[in-house]
Amino acid sequence: MTLPLALTQGDPSGIGPELTLKAYASKDAAGLPPFFVVADAAYLARVAKALAIDVAIEETTPAHAAKIFAQALPVVSHGHEVRGAFGRPEPSDAKTTIASIERAVDHVVTGEARAVVTNPIAKAVLYAAGFAHPGHTEFLGELARRHFHAARRAVMMLWAEELAVVPITIHIPLAEAPKLLTKALIVETGEIVAGDMRARFGIAAPRLAFSGLNPHAGEDGALGREEIETIAPAIEELRARGVDARGPFPADTMFHAAARKNYDVALCPTHDQALIPIKTLAFDRGVNVTLGLPFVRTSPDHGTAFDIAGKGVADATSLIEAIKLAGRMTA
Amino acid sequence: MTLPLALTQGDPSGIGPELTLKAYASKDAAGLPPFFVVADAAYLARVAKALAIDVAIEETTPAHAAKIFAQALPVVSHGHEVRGAFGRPEPSDAKTTIASIERAVDHVVTGEARAVVTNPIAKAVLYAAGFAHPGHTEFLGELARRHFHAARRAVMMLWAEELAVVPITIHIPLAEAPKLLTKALIVETGEIVAGDMRARFGIAAPRLAFSGLNPHAGEDGALGREEIETIAPAIEELRARGVDARGPFPADTMFHAAARKNYDVALCPTHDQALIPIKTLAFDRGVNVTLGLPFVRTSPDHGTAFDIAGKGVADATSLIEAIKLAGRMTA
Repeated sequence: MTLPLALTQGDPSGIGPELTLKAYASKDAAGLPPFFVVADAAYLARVAKALAIDVAIEETTPAHAAKIFAQALPVVSHGHEVRGAFGRPEPSDAKTTIASIERAVDHVVTGEARAVVTNPIAKAVLYAAGFAHPGHTEFLGELARRHFHAARRAVMMLWAEELAVVPITIHIPLAEAPKLLTKALIVETGEIVAGDMRARFGIAAPRLAFSGLNPHAGEDGALGREEIETIAPAIEELRARGVDARGPFPADTMFHAAARKNYDVALCPTHDQALIPIKTLAFDRGVNVTLGLPFVRTSPDHGTAFDIAGKGVADATSLIEAIKLAGRMTA
Repeated sequence: MTLPLALTQGDPSGIGPELTLKAYASKDAAGLPPFFVVADAAYLARVAKALAIDVAIEETTPAHAAKIFAQALPVVSHGHEVRGAFGRPEPSDAKTTIASIERAVDHVVTGEARAVVTNPIAKAVLYAAGFAHPGHTEFLGELARRHFHAARRAVMMLWAEELAVVPITIHIPLAEAPKLLTKALIVETGEIVAGDMRARFGIAAPRLAFSGLNPHAGEDGALGREEIETIAPAIEELRARGVDARGPFPADTMFHAAARKNYDVALCPTHDQALIPIKTLAFDRGVNVTLGLPFVRTSPDHGTAFDIAGKGVADATSLIEAIKLAGRMTA
């Protein structure tokens, strides 16, 4: 029997429950591997009824999830009742959102699930409940350290069939990016990406293409010196360590179809350099993948979308792609 | 008789002459408006022979160019002989490259041509010959001031059928962009863009969408304050002046097909934010348009490509699109 994936609940007042039901409903058409969701079965049933999504739901254990997957959406309890309210995050539900993530990781650690797929959370709601991590990825990093002790830094990759990108700096003001971009950060990121492209994506010699920080990759220093002083030396160092690292290339000419054939993943100094091209090309299909963890974690590339929660219009494509990719990465 | 466009020679050792011949050869298939090139007819004939491009070439005056356009590529002399050498820019040719730009503008000023289309130049080659302008666009701005006295600042737009973008800061180190991004610069740029979208593109009420500078447009100040302190007030000011200015929006989610329907032109604080999406979507078809000049100027969106000059493999698509767009903008 195939080991199932563990899907988290996400914020129950967001679109996560709707996406979960819709993804399950499309499991045959989309060819999804078996999964269970760590949630409150009664709440999911209420959402299914409210949105008229015709899906059988069955509370079960991880060990039985794959067996019943063909007949019903397997729900593994996180031990809490969910109140929920479409579009209005309920403070008392924050603990259920956090518990779902912790339990899903537990199930992977104990060998009952093969990977974690996370539904969207709203950080502000969790902060109010005492959540002390900057975000989802960092919390997973902390759980990894708790269980595996020596986890590496978590690295965010955005993945679609036609393009995979990694922003080297992420959620910081742009003015800080030139200061935070160090040779050590680039080398560490490159090694984590190269390692996971080999281990999780089955690419024996992954090609990593780095963009510059400045327009035209600095034009030989005329438009900035970070390429010369930081990025090129980091690429040299990665090559010395056996990584096929290339660049730095001008970011604007790296992402058209012909250019994309020359690498497996593009690494860019800033958030927008990396995320603009993938969201331009694959807005609905992008998957957020966390590299550097001792387990596979994928996620849809969007938020809780409180504004459309409960309306039945949420698009499950990104969650479906996230489930498929988690299956592929652990096949 | 339709007034012709004036095409400049560009660096004669780059791909400009080849592109000019190829564009002329495809004039019927591409539906190009009549144009003449300000060049050395003998040199163009040598290039045509060397590359086996079967095009008739005839030296003429601007007044006769449109009449002979169906039979031969009209060449208007810039008064110099060109030496040329594929791939090796010839210092003594720099004056011919500059003269071609000056003459082309002269022909527009005197009413003998309706717009300028420029072939690529190599700034370093021209600097050595005493050229004192940072680039093509700035030189055209200077010629505009010389002839028209009160020209506005020249603003670079990249245009393709599916997307038009304007970088608000351009060829500067990224670390300087947050400092140079002022409310005055954004308002001035927005007014020039709105004015030319009305006057040159025939859009009565152009919709200008501004991106943020920071990831997620600053996330309400958590990831940077430029959106709150600079960009939003500039948008307010533009709206007070009657411009349909929108945003600031997160740059990464502005460029997919559905989002692009909500604006006519996207304006971004940094070079890469603006150029990545258009070069990802329309790498070969992008046209460089200079706004804010008292005349229309378009250009292919690439350089002299000395590495492939003389090999016959240069792709004339961007020059063809530039000629078509200049025709459309002056129709």
